[in-house]
Amino acid sequence: MNSDENNCIFCKIIAGEIPAEKVYEDEDILAFLDITPINAGHTLVIPKKHYENIFELSDEILQKISLKLRDIGRAIKEAVGAEGLNIGMNNRSAAGQLVMHAHFHLIPRYVSDGYKHWGGRKYKDGEISLVAEKIKKEIIK
Amino acid sequence: MNSDENNCIFCKIIAGEIPAEKVYEDEDILAFLDITPINAGHTLVIPKKHYENIFELSDEILQKISLKLRDIGRAIKEAVGAEGLNIGMNNRSAAGQLVMHAHFHLIPRYVSDGYKHWGGRKYKDGEISLVAEKIKKEIIK
Repeated sequence: MNSDENNCIFCKIIAGEIPAEKVYEDEDILAFLDITPINAGHTLVIPKKHYENIFELSDEILQKISLKLRDIGRAIKEAVGAEGLNIGMNNRSAAGQLVMHAHFHLIPRYVSDGYKHWGGRKYKDGEISLVAEKIKKEIIK
Repeated sequence: MNSDENNCIFCKIIAGEIPAEKVYEDEDILAFLDITPINAGHTLVIPKKHYENIFELSDEILQKISLKLRDIGRAIKEAVGAEGLNIGMNNRSAAGQLVMHAHFHLIPRYVSDGYKHWGGRKYKDGEISLVAEKIKKEIIK
């Protein structure tokens, strides 16, 4: 373990040094309940290897996790009788990431649970095309 | 096209009937800018085939999209000089889904952009273990 992993609460959960309510585990992936849920059943899905965020995830792990998000998400929805499901991933502090071990949130939702999404704004005239051009240039790189 | 697809704004974007600022396209996937962004560069990544939500997505498409979320996400971050990135997917109306064609949000973020995440609550005594058991039973099914 390097120093990042030594100080990582999720690595300690994986190692069994900190308890967690696990709902799924295989050789690469662990899923366990968030202890401060948005709604009961709110689950975190993580790679067992310490990656800091989406940008570091290997193709193989990312593809494996993506299937589990769907399958564990379906199980959560059935288990708690939810009417919807949010999938979320916060990458870096600026995006609200609190534990620096890549993790996906699966959040069961209800019509009347009262959570509101952020409202968007409008682009200024011509701005949207300039932004699209910049992104396309970065994708080509 | 069935009636769902005929009335679907994203299917119309894919078909070229409605304009969009596209940033990436291949035979299975399209990415284009959200016209009411949380921050400039906010992008939607969608399968070209009409699936309503995560629960309907095939293994193959889900795996392909997962890699694009990382790669297009990295490009957006570089293009707009963002400090973080949220990945989000709202499944069903109860979760805030507005267009019933499966889509992922890629949202560039900044330390001082002011967007706040929902706060969690605490489980009651013993509740977390009961919830975990219910989910595990659904995963085994």
